[in-house]
Amino acid sequence: MSRNLEEPRRIAFAELVALLERIFVRFGTSVPNARILATNCAQCERDGSLSHGVFRIAGYVASLNSRWVDGRAVAAIEQHGPSFIRVDARNGFAQPALAAAMPLICESVARAGVTMVAIRDSHHFSALWPDLEPFADAGLVSLAMVSGLACVAPPGGRKPIFGTNPLAFATPVAGSRPLIFDFATSAMSNGDLRLAAKAKHTVPLGTGIDADGALSGDPDAILSGGALLPFGGHKGASISLMVEILASALTGGQFSNEVDFSAHAGAETPKTGQTIIVIDPTRGETRAFAERVKTLLDCVRDAGQARLPSDRRYQTRAQSERNGIPLTMRQYDELVALAQ
Amino acid sequence: MSRNLEEPRRIAFAELVALLERIFVRFGTSVPNARILATNCAQCERDGSLSHGVFRIAGYVASLNSRWVDGRAVAAIEQHGPSFIRVDARNGFAQPALAAAMPLICESVARAGVTMVAIRDSHHFSALWPDLEPFADAGLVSLAMVSGLACVAPPGGRKPIFGTNPLAFATPVAGSRPLIFDFATSAMSNGDLRLAAKAKHTVPLGTGIDADGALSGDPDAILSGGALLPFGGHKGASISLMVEILASALTGGQFSNEVDFSAHAGAETPKTGQTIIVIDPTRGETRAFAERVKTLLDCVRDAGQARLPSDRRYQTRAQSERNGIPLTMRQYDELVALAQ
Repeated sequence: MSRNLEEPRRIAFAELVALLERIFVRFGTSVPNARILATNCAQCERDGSLSHGVFRIAGYVASLNSRWVDGRAVAAIEQHGPSFIRVDARNGFAQPALAAAMPLICESVARAGVTMVAIRDSHHFSALWPDLEPFADAGLVSLAMVSGLACVAPPGGRKPIFGTNPLAFATPVAGSRPLIFDFATSAMSNGDLRLAAKAKHTVPLGTGIDADGALSGDPDAILSGGALLPFGGHKGASISLMVEILASALTGGQFSNEVDFSAHAGAETPKTGQTIIVIDPTRGETRAFAERVKTLLDCVRDAGQARLPSDRRYQTRAQSERNGIPLTMRQYDELVALAQ
Repeated sequence: MSRNLEEPRRIAFAELVALLERIFVRFGTSVPNARILATNCAQCERDGSLSHGVFRIAGYVASLNSRWVDGRAVAAIEQHGPSFIRVDARNGFAQPALAAAMPLICESVARAGVTMVAIRDSHHFSALWPDLEPFADAGLVSLAMVSGLACVAPPGGRKPIFGTNPLAFATPVAGSRPLIFDFATSAMSNGDLRLAAKAKHTVPLGTGIDADGALSGDPDAILSGGALLPFGGHKGASISLMVEILASALTGGQFSNEVDFSAHAGAETPKTGQTIIVIDPTRGETRAFAERVKTLLDCVRDAGQARLPSDRRYQTRAQSERNGIPLTMRQYDELVALAQ
């Protein structure tokens, strides 16, 4: 009797981290980098950010195999003034670079009140919220942006310039977990577009354009020579442009449309830049900041918004912590095979 | 023969500033504050930001007359750490408060690399781009947010919580005027909604809700007990919420839904807060920042975006500088009458 591969295989967080760590090490990352990347990926899977969870492991492995990204990179950290920290990720992943800069960032923001973190030559292949949650847990407000691979056309344009260029924001909230939002500034994520194509579904008009620059609801047309569009029309497009400027121009990283991994077959990770602004909100305090945020969120819920950003993530996290993280047997088997 | 009041009456920038200054002084602002507010208002009119130009004078006058805002306020400026500047506008307008803090802001960002400006107890009744253009002219990158009067409901909500909560961003560009965007994070500005109501036009579904919380394309229904919605669905709503947190909670100012001028008949200006983050982009430089922004904007235009944020404003400015600012005879007469 054959095993049903779609059957659930629940796994504890620590066990998933250990399994993913073995995979990262096996495909060429250093042990400290593997620990950071494995934890990040397991957090995404645990919290239901599935497009940045275990699903991404194949892409990490392919990029490492292609030698496009350096899994052993050790970031160089340079302080340029009391509040400006430059990080050269040296062609490594962004998360270990951020982790290396973390003590200096926290020291700088505690002293100065706000700190700008400019990471360049970095590969960011995950969600942004895991980068920001530790800041919020430490009582800090933060804002992060990352550029990507050109797949989003400017409004009225015919070819892709921007990455999906996510924007994330995190703030402490008195009496509860931090509020964190994290979204692509494209009308739809690349992952969701691919899922729609696979399922032969149409997507809303405004999601993207075909190869002729015409609006299209056909995901295949958007994927074959077309492009996504920014969310929210001209306003969203301005935000995509701002992300590109802050995450790439300001950091000294590459723009989304400059990433060229054609010499690295199988590479998937964008090598661009990331900007994080970290603020000590108690500096502006005339009334307790985290209490004021709580007051505002209570008003928003009371006005009828059923779900606030990050609500669903915390619910999924609680379920995962109670019952284990729900992989399928197929996913589990694949991870075990990769780890050996 | 009667004069045609709709006939154009072109006016030079300096003449308009002087005329507006006399109005502000006449209705109770100090001379230095009047100069700053008059310049700001004339800049908006000159550049075609008409909803923040001469059109606003009646509202300024009514708010000053109601004693809701203090036209003679002198802001108190407090530095809280090398990179954090708190400004108490003391119930005055935000623009004179920012002007008073300007030398300290420039000194702080030159020394530290980034500076957070948190203005509270301030009335912002204009566009944000005039606040940021001087930073961009000085080679700095800046980001500004201001909260307002509650007229925007959260998604799925039935009552207004947020102001139109504008967000603005400015950056230098090599070889040309700065790139600046500045937009309401509501689906439509209050001004445009009122214009649609007056013209008996419908507005796109998604612009707002009626008093029962149902989506409505009828501007009258949105204005009578309903509310606007944020732009761009849940993503835009998250940005509105971030603006409220950064411009009000972080500064110690009031939230948009806490503004209560019921005791001041005629008052129109919101008393909330404003946040400005100012960054020295040369700190992140591995390649010349303003040149890199130019490279990106060239790509965006080349990809087919016909007009970038602020293009139209600079075109209108050039026309105004050549031919004078085009008021109507009616507008001119009204300003002259108010000034006497």
